[in-house]
Amino acid sequence: MIPLSLNTVTVKEKWGLADCIEGCARHGIPGISPWRDVLHAMGVDAAAKQVRDAGLTVTGLCRGGMFPAPDAAGRAAAIEDNRRAIEEAHKLKAQCLVMVCGGLPAGSKDLPGARAMVRDGLAAILDEARAAGVTLALEPLHPMTCADRSVLSTLGQALDLCEALGAGVGVAVDVYHVWWDPDLAAQMARAKGRIAAFHACDWLVPTTDLVFDRGMPGDGVIDIAAIRHMAEEAGYAGFTEVELLSRRWWGEEPDHVLSVMKERHAGIA
Amino acid sequence: MIPLSLNTVTVKEKWGLADCIEGCARHGIPGISPWRDVLHAMGVDAAAKQVRDAGLTVTGLCRGGMFPAPDAAGRAAAIEDNRRAIEEAHKLKAQCLVMVCGGLPAGSKDLPGARAMVRDGLAAILDEARAAGVTLALEPLHPMTCADRSVLSTLGQALDLCEALGAGVGVAVDVYHVWWDPDLAAQMARAKGRIAAFHACDWLVPTTDLVFDRGMPGDGVIDIAAIRHMAEEAGYAGFTEVELLSRRWWGEEPDHVLSVMKERHAGIA
Repeated sequence: MIPLSLNTVTVKEKWGLADCIEGCARHGIPGISPWRDVLHAMGVDAAAKQVRDAGLTVTGLCRGGMFPAPDAAGRAAAIEDNRRAIEEAHKLKAQCLVMVCGGLPAGSKDLPGARAMVRDGLAAILDEARAAGVTLALEPLHPMTCADRSVLSTLGQALDLCEALGAGVGVAVDVYHVWWDPDLAAQMARAKGRIAAFHACDWLVPTTDLVFDRGMPGDGVIDIAAIRHMAEEAGYAGFTEVELLSRRWWGEEPDHVLSVMKERHAGIA
Repeated sequence: MIPLSLNTVTVKEKWGLADCIEGCARHGIPGISPWRDVLHAMGVDAAAKQVRDAGLTVTGLCRGGMFPAPDAAGRAAAIEDNRRAIEEAHKLKAQCLVMVCGGLPAGSKDLPGARAMVRDGLAAILDEARAAGVTLALEPLHPMTCADRSVLSTLGQALDLCEALGAGVGVAVDVYHVWWDPDLAAQMARAKGRIAAFHACDWLVPTTDLVFDRGMPGDGVIDIAAIRHMAEEAGYAGFTEVELLSRRWWGEEPDHVLSVMKERHAGIA
């Protein structure tokens, strides 16, 4: 049985981090992956203690990254913020820090330039991440987010960066972002030893929003089991983390959301 | 000066094909690319004559493709429809038949299977396309359309298909669909001799709809001039066709839309 993890954004409208930790314990969900906003609201030390007391595995901290900025001061501020995120991930004993690398700087059309800012930003924090034992999990995001969230768009591109940066860097594979990729099977095989996190949700038809209309696993067209199988063939034996950004599911009672999540996960895993 | 072409979908709410042809002549736009709905409404022979009389180049016919279907009868019907599209493109002396290859069949999660249906569909019509002198221009569509419009998602994937199918097959490069691709420069170089059409519009930030929120060139973040330059380096010296699917621009007077289009094109080209 593949262990399940709750990404806190899935229930962000109704539950803070303490509620999420209690909810996971109540539902027998052994993993949790907090976003930094709810982590900061609770306090990092208190959260680390409560997670530990509940016996949960922190499958990731969301998120570092967002490196590109129009000026040097903005890029330096992003790097500073990533340093704090590394500390937080270390305190939480998170399996990785998920990196959403950032889009084009405001007003820019220079995609190669933005990609260079991402590479430089990662290089700037790598020693600290290694020293803290925090894996930087590069998450390729769906190409529809390229302008404003992530110029890192494919698994192949993420693995190229992993190879350039060396130890301490891996990938976060979210089926929502990579399912469409004609090169997916080859790149998943290439990812051997690099997969630090595996995220699941589903692609709805139709999809009515570029960010907030992800589907519950099973409600869409992604062959999640097939992609999970590729991850296992590449040596990944960890959690499947359900991360839903969905106005529809944010409207539901979180205990119901967790029940459905568990049921769907059991059907796929 | 790069010659400009009007894709009729850009003004589809207010103009039929005859209006578009007259509009192009009035605005000094030397190319036109009709969709088949307005072509059928006008009649193919009448359209061919009016286009010829106006001295316009037909830069493409939109669209063939849509091969995947849940059953053999559906796939056969799609192939028949593509045969009619080839005839129409031949009558119009269109520079290509633009192929929007189709998404997953209803109810399916089998992406490799849908891709095989696309390949088989193209193979089935290739002899007729060659005999008619109609280039099949495979258009990779943005990955956000993978489920419902095109399992052909990248230029690299389109070029692989070109190589597998041989003569008579090329690619339609629409900057909207490919601008995000980390492999774009390499694949554009590889496309030498294969580029049958070049389409332009822009990626808006934010984009509020997955299909109908394309931007007028210049209003978004795509470095259109850079991608056009790549096309020219790959030997393409043809038209830039403006194809806008946009609720915002559909609401404007078409003569205004054509004026803005011309002005923006002149600024980029």
